[in-house]
Amino acid sequence: MAFQKPTGTQDLLPGVVEKWQYVEEKARDLCRRFNYREIRTPIFEQTNLFERGVGETTDIVEKEMYTFRDKGDRSMTLRPEGTAGVVRSYVENKLYGEPDVTKLYYTGPMFRYERPQAGRQRQFHQFGVEVFGAVDPAIDAEVIALGYQFCRELGLQGVSVELNSVGNAESRAAYRETLLSFLNPMKDTLCKDCQSRMERNPLRVLDCKVDQDKFTDAPSILDSLSEEEMTHFKKVQQFLDEIEIPYTLNHRLVRGLDYYTMTAFELKAEGIGAIDTIGGGGRYNGLVAGIGGPDQPGIGFGIGLERILLILDKQGVDLQAVKPLDVYFVALGEAAEHEVGKQIFKLRQAGFSAERDYLGRKMKAQMKSADRLKARYTAILGDDELERGEIAIKSMENGEQQVVKLTDIESVLR
Amino acid sequence: MAFQKPTGTQDLLPGVVEKWQYVEEKARDLCRRFNYREIRTPIFEQTNLFERGVGETTDIVEKEMYTFRDKGDRSMTLRPEGTAGVVRSYVENKLYGEPDVTKLYYTGPMFRYERPQAGRQRQFHQFGVEVFGAVDPAIDAEVIALGYQFCRELGLQGVSVELNSVGNAESRAAYRETLLSFLNPMKDTLCKDCQSRMERNPLRVLDCKVDQDKFTDAPSILDSLSEEEMTHFKKVQQFLDEIEIPYTLNHRLVRGLDYYTMTAFELKAEGIGAIDTIGGGGRYNGLVAGIGGPDQPGIGFGIGLERILLILDKQGVDLQAVKPLDVYFVALGEAAEHEVGKQIFKLRQAGFSAERDYLGRKMKAQMKSADRLKARYTAILGDDELERGEIAIKSMENGEQQVVKLTDIESVLR
Repeated sequence: MAFQKPTGTQDLLPGVVEKWQYVEEKARDLCRRFNYREIRTPIFEQTNLFERGVGETTDIVEKEMYTFRDKGDRSMTLRPEGTAGVVRSYVENKLYGEPDVTKLYYTGPMFRYERPQAGRQRQFHQFGVEVFGAVDPAIDAEVIALGYQFCRELGLQGVSVELNSVGNAESRAAYRETLLSFLNPMKDTLCKDCQSRMERNPLRVLDCKVDQDKFTDAPSILDSLSEEEMTHFKKVQQFLDEIEIPYTLNHRLVRGLDYYTMTAFELKAEGIGAIDTIGGGGRYNGLVAGIGGPDQPGIGFGIGLERILLILDKQGVDLQAVKPLDVYFVALGEAAEHEVGKQIFKLRQAGFSAERDYLGRKMKAQMKSADRLKARYTAILGDDELERGEIAIKSMENGEQQVVKLTDIESVLR
Repeated sequence: MAFQKPTGTQDLLPGVVEKWQYVEEKARDLCRRFNYREIRTPIFEQTNLFERGVGETTDIVEKEMYTFRDKGDRSMTLRPEGTAGVVRSYVENKLYGEPDVTKLYYTGPMFRYERPQAGRQRQFHQFGVEVFGAVDPAIDAEVIALGYQFCRELGLQGVSVELNSVGNAESRAAYRETLLSFLNPMKDTLCKDCQSRMERNPLRVLDCKVDQDKFTDAPSILDSLSEEEMTHFKKVQQFLDEIEIPYTLNHRLVRGLDYYTMTAFELKAEGIGAIDTIGGGGRYNGLVAGIGGPDQPGIGFGIGLERILLILDKQGVDLQAVKPLDVYFVALGEAAEHEVGKQIFKLRQAGFSAERDYLGRKMKAQMKSADRLKARYTAILGDDELERGEIAIKSMENGEQQVVKLTDIESVLR
């Protein structure tokens, strides 16, 4: 009987996992520089948090959630996205009581029961940020800049930002009417999904992949914005201009949820076809109050790490993620083996990476092992050298070999 | 309506999460030095993997698993421990076909439905290592040394190793008989759990907290070991002696599962009462074959990170995990604010951490913010300085202030 991983999940093995470590370390370091601090919320939450925080009429909540009853008969759900849990935590832990703006980031697994395909898994991983308590357009620009900079520092080519403002509830309601007036005459020609969306959330119609071409002349949501909303939007653009973040305006870019307000954006990368969106986000000034907290504004983004890795791969970006081994020891004879055990432990304590053979293999096989590990040095110890308290050290880069005192290994490696 | 995190789960918030980052970074760095590479397996697996890999008669499988049916009606379980998934992955991905010994580590969330208490959560986190393909006792010593060194480098006091050998299936069967002969006469005086364990897995009786005192004269499993097993055990001790890892022999230390063979060990820390075990592990030479793989030996450990953090806290170890901010900018006036936006982005691109105010607060409130962030410098920009292309930079350490060119900020911070 052989076991298999569940459909839509992945094993990240040595050789690949180092790329993930690199990408995550980049996220952590960027967040340090931008003064965002990590938050970790549970892998599962009460189901109704997502019904409330993601939206009961969304595909995620209607079709894709991993929901189960725990042994206490409570309905729990593996988190399908990162924002709801962070907002819940912000409210429950009263972080809004702190004097500064709350700037948070997270990375970790999320779960949606979808049909698996390239860059889309049932267990997938996101890097996201959330900022609470600030309406300053400089924060909108900062959040966008952080996402953009993340992609750029990873070496992604052709990164671009699409930008829009979806106003607040009032101006969006006005736009909804305008849009429906445009859509109603063509309703019968639209796909089934669009027809259903027209009733539930007409703004989502503009997202449709099938009917895209029919919406060229659709009214722009920007025409429905209030003066205040337009001023905010212009300032976001000014801040982005000042730090030279390239963006294009896309008035059809809408985020589906009622909580979204004002700034909406997506990060794209070049030349990867259907999956060219690598992340997106926006303001959600209504969400904190929507799940029972005080009326605090919020803004954030989520970036799919599977997509980032896939695009890095397609663009041929080499992350140089695997670190070479410092030294591989070859012991000839049992006394040498014990001495090597001591030397390796000492070096590892001192910060070096060191390895030896554990399979009783011949020297040639051990040297191959050193090659596979890209060892900088090999250190060869026979019983003769051991008696003199010496060891032969060979640089694998230039082939030079020297015999040194056992006590001097460390200084050779430095 | 306010939402709460599920019982037995935690939010790791800024201020605490940095300690977790520190501990995990220590694990990653140690594993680099010891040449262990990370593996990440899915958060959930097919339920029968754990029935097979953990054992159907264990408390974990019988009482504590988060099991659910997915939308495809397959029984899935949130992983209750780390080893089964890693072994499944080792087999499924045929890692045994590689020429070197497979040395892996993992960190991440695990799930058991238990009564929550200090250091024990329903979602908890482990750091663990698994080595496949080597029977060399030097590997047993290395695994133990890695766990020990992890605790030591974190600054834990009074770390000790308890060591035993539980033999293989044959010698353990012989011991089971000897032990039962000792236990049978006192059976009626033992607690219910012990009586039930006597039938299902008599070795676990020795673990009993209630009846501990009655087993002082119990026969030692070491007397049942074969000569080969004893030689292996002695060599493990010799290797540990040579690298000066302190350990005590404890012949009552048994690991409950049938797959465990030979070396068994636990890591303990001083003075924390009931939860003094922070991790444990051992050989499981039967496990890989047991879940359908080739007959490859294995050895590993798991360390509970909640416990590590709890003990560090109780011992008053300060991890110095929160990094100070490099510079906090104070902008006086709107033009200055835009210039500060540019300067901050430039510094962040150059690797510095930088922050500003987003709430339109007065200077005094902003300086307090800089204090809370432990800023090394504050940089104050008014319209006058801006006109001259200058900025005032103040060291928060010694209070010294200097006025420098805007283009020189970076060199002052260095």
